[in-house]
Amino acid sequence: MRYTAGAIKEAFDPRRMAYWIEKFARIGKGSTEGVTRLAFSPEDREARREATQILQTEFELNVRTDALGNIFARREGKYPEWPVVMTGSHLDSVRNGGKFDGPAGVFSSIEAFRALDLLNIETEHPFELCILSSEEPNAFGISTFGSRGMVGALDKESLRSLRDDQGNDLPGALSKIGGDFERLEEAVRKPEEIACFVELHIEQMPYLEREKKEIGIVQGVTGIYREAITVNGTAGHSGTTPMNDRKDALCAASDIILALEAAARAEGNEAVATVGQAKVFPNSVNTVPQSVKTAAEIRSHDPECIRRINRTLASTIAKIEKSRGVQVQRRMIYDSPPTRFSPTVIRSIHKASDFLGFTKMETISMAGHDAAHLNRIADSGMIFIPCRKGLSHCPEEHTETENIVKGSQCLLMTLLILDEVKKGD
Amino acid sequence: MRYTAGAIKEAFDPRRMAYWIEKFARIGKGSTEGVTRLAFSPEDREARREATQILQTEFELNVRTDALGNIFARREGKYPEWPVVMTGSHLDSVRNGGKFDGPAGVFSSIEAFRALDLLNIETEHPFELCILSSEEPNAFGISTFGSRGMVGALDKESLRSLRDDQGNDLPGALSKIGGDFERLEEAVRKPEEIACFVELHIEQMPYLEREKKEIGIVQGVTGIYREAITVNGTAGHSGTTPMNDRKDALCAASDIILALEAAARAEGNEAVATVGQAKVFPNSVNTVPQSVKTAAEIRSHDPECIRRINRTLASTIAKIEKSRGVQVQRRMIYDSPPTRFSPTVIRSIHKASDFLGFTKMETISMAGHDAAHLNRIADSGMIFIPCRKGLSHCPEEHTETENIVKGSQCLLMTLLILDEVKKGD
Repeated sequence: MRYTAGAIKEAFDPRRMAYWIEKFARIGKGSTEGVTRLAFSPEDREARREATQILQTEFELNVRTDALGNIFARREGKYPEWPVVMTGSHLDSVRNGGKFDGPAGVFSSIEAFRALDLLNIETEHPFELCILSSEEPNAFGISTFGSRGMVGALDKESLRSLRDDQGNDLPGALSKIGGDFERLEEAVRKPEEIACFVELHIEQMPYLEREKKEIGIVQGVTGIYREAITVNGTAGHSGTTPMNDRKDALCAASDIILALEAAARAEGNEAVATVGQAKVFPNSVNTVPQSVKTAAEIRSHDPECIRRINRTLASTIAKIEKSRGVQVQRRMIYDSPPTRFSPTVIRSIHKASDFLGFTKMETISMAGHDAAHLNRIADSGMIFIPCRKGLSHCPEEHTETENIVKGSQCLLMTLLILDEVKKGD
Repeated sequence: MRYTAGAIKEAFDPRRMAYWIEKFARIGKGSTEGVTRLAFSPEDREARREATQILQTEFELNVRTDALGNIFARREGKYPEWPVVMTGSHLDSVRNGGKFDGPAGVFSSIEAFRALDLLNIETEHPFELCILSSEEPNAFGISTFGSRGMVGALDKESLRSLRDDQGNDLPGALSKIGGDFERLEEAVRKPEEIACFVELHIEQMPYLEREKKEIGIVQGVTGIYREAITVNGTAGHSGTTPMNDRKDALCAASDIILALEAAARAEGNEAVATVGQAKVFPNSVNTVPQSVKTAAEIRSHDPECIRRINRTLASTIAKIEKSRGVQVQRRMIYDSPPTRFSPTVIRSIHKASDFLGFTKMETISMAGHDAAHLNRIADSGMIFIPCRKGLSHCPEEHTETENIVKGSQCLLMTLLILDEVKKGD
């Protein structure tokens, strides 16, 4: 290495990292403590505008937005025609989420780029910093939109027919962040364009904190299966419909919710399952619910586990349809198999941690990430940093600035190692 | 009697009754088959305006609206200073409800008044036809608003602080239908002002149809107990929060919903219980639900039954709070004890049915009604007419025009009998 661990570490200023995190936490901070910066919303647009300006003015980088709304800032290397070494994360959030899910990765990348400038490092490959669009589920029910589009995994025609709660369509929403639905295919990247992709993220689990490790080296990402479940019963007056004559959609949905929970618990620590959404119709205090729309999700690193829970769900639903006289519609809305990250990237993170003297452990991500999709076209991997009590997607989400800075140092070092390693490709 | 059953019957035209029902069914008919004429809404206002116009132009009656938004049309009797014989119902509906709940009673009263004119009958008491405001639960969670106000059972200060989903207040909503929140107390009626009140309504239960009876003579109205239940858990990422670390508010709410259902079923046909509303926060497909707001309702003609279900609910909630680590807030929002209707009115309906040769049966209402409140200040009672399969509060709600006409004839006869009977008071 041409630089010492000490020199790398000195190029980072924790106060700047803290400043970025707090600055962006204010974009979408409502009356509650949480952050709401839903994809395509005015808050999302404001965060994207701010970040673009920082990249253009502070770093004088060439910034472009692709048809998917992904933002790319390019730092030229010795060989401009070589594939890029890519890093980045996202700035959109869930409703009432935390400050770190996304921004920790974006600002780790930005501060790593600043360190490159401070240390006057000329890399071999061009480096690209990306802010991927709509990583969290957007109003159309699509998550990791930007990265799925980059690997050609979006079906344009089925996307076109989607509507959000207000009846808006995706092309319109996308145009608000500078994307262009009609030119979506132009944003698809070829494997020869990207040498590798590394994303830093808070762990969102309690294990690093519990084990007192500074760096999590992510081996892969959980499989995620989601379906929309609609329970159709029969509305009726809440006073005059005898209990035995009811086809109560909310009671039936409750059965399904609890059955799914039990099926996931039966798998021990190998799986989780969640019903995060429910909408009751007509939602009146004195009407037996006619229908309930929910969305169910199953996650596991083991595809067989997901299939097993799904089978239990199917048999429960069949039983409930019979016993309660309701009809249940199921529609798969997302099915992402488990991912194994690139051994090259995993090895590089190990080396980077060792070089910087950080404590580390291997882990699996139970959250979906853009890196899982990009792994289909480029050697990809992720660096996790500790996260207080593992809490995420909530206002209590927290990590110390020091953790992000160490992660950012490890990220920079990993990218530099990959810049070397990938030379031989 | 000064008139024969035949003469009474001939004064009614089924085509006119069918015309009214269909005319008003179009006010608030959306893209679905159901009727949505929520209290204070533009559709409610349109229906009230139309009805007022009919009373003023076709009947040349003196029409006034009180501070509660109740509409009264007065037909003078021989003794203007005597208390009024009152009849009527409501025109507001639940969301996606039926055509008959409310209007059947309003147009039965209107056609009974027309028959009085056609038969040239001068009554002893003044007769008043009323269209009571906001019988169904309004956007502020209040049902039978107009009648509760008339008997002085509304707490002005607690009403003042209520807000609907859009943040609007009740005084503003009330002013839209010609009411006046600041003068609410002026709408309170004294017992000496109202001789009696009779309301015709569809049964909303399948018993009259099943027993092939034309007239239901209502003995009383069920007790209704409602509470708002909020389950507070902890939000978390749906992938990274292990099943055993969760405080899932929706799973806990599901437990409560099913426990309430089981407790009501355990009472046989003596009670019903319903959770008709549920709102999940933050309602995101990949967030463990943080909180769920629901409203639970218990109904029975037997107060002990309601208490027993309530005790089961309380003990279930205590168990769930412990086992799931959630907090559950309960707030009583409505508690109306069972009502026994006036024996004088019940006897009069019996006599009227017999006089007209209608088949009849005694019954209990499992739905709340304005008559139950007015019974506190005046001899009150209700006439039920058959209702297909007992379905109500849904687009499938149906009764034959013939049933409404017979009910209307029975209503007129009952009022005339009471006009005689109450003379002695």
